[in-house]
Amino acid sequence: MKEARKAFDIDEVPVGAVIVKDGSIIARAYNTREMSQDATAHAEILAIKKACEAMGSWRLIGCTLYVTLEPCPMCAGAIILARLDRVVFGAWDPKAGAAGSVVNLFEVERFNHHPEVISGVLAEECGALLKEFFRQKR
Amino acid sequence: MKEARKAFDIDEVPVGAVIVKDGSIIARAYNTREMSQDATAHAEILAIKKACEAMGSWRLIGCTLYVTLEPCPMCAGAIILARLDRVVFGAWDPKAGAAGSVVNLFEVERFNHHPEVISGVLAEECGALLKEFFRQKR
Repeated sequence: MKEARKAFDIDEVPVGAVIVKDGSIIARAYNTREMSQDATAHAEILAIKKACEAMGSWRLIGCTLYVTLEPCPMCAGAIILARLDRVVFGAWDPKAGAAGSVVNLFEVERFNHHPEVISGVLAEECGALLKEFFRQKR
Repeated sequence: MKEARKAFDIDEVPVGAVIVKDGSIIARAYNTREMSQDATAHAEILAIKKACEAMGSWRLIGCTLYVTLEPCPMCAGAIILARLDRVVFGAWDPKAGAAGSVVNLFEVERFNHHPEVISGVLAEECGALLKEFFRQKR
């Protein structure tokens, strides 16, 4: 939520993510698509890159990713590729969510990794920040 | 294919990508997952990041991405997010392909962008390099 607020404060769609290993945050990031003009600069991708650096490995075994919004297909794909143990997310994304809203990439049997998925944690708070952002934009 | 060979030469899974706008290559990249120990360092993601930089925009309107292997879900998601006009790929990826092999993210109606997809171009050459790589690994 703190990371999402940082995005909100610089006029980015407010999504934040952290990656936790053994009870410690090893990476934190927020969406910077507009600031960086980079289509891939979602909170989850940036957090995964930082966590890979922190771990010295592209395999984020034993790690949990927390994110305020249901991951999109790009981010869900990255979560699978990085072998994250677990994903915990807040608000559902009915337009682009890839954890059940539009597609569910985490339950495709033929993929070689299936993280545990916990959904809807603090969904109301996470969603309220997004709603407030888009309300101000109108 | 040249980019894929560069990956092959440094012992990375040989996948290469370029992004073309108005007949000119504006970005080129190859898979560097092992070298960079970054789960997101697929050829397509790296090429999209470079093309966004070259265009000064996260919207790659009017651009075509060429890649030697069918995109995975992460890369297919990034292609949709970057609003690429067109994707042209070589070999099919029966294990992780997201353009028809395992899932088809480009044909999900509810996503807000649908690139044109051209598949199987130089599939034999693209596939042969991958087969040679995995043969040497065994």
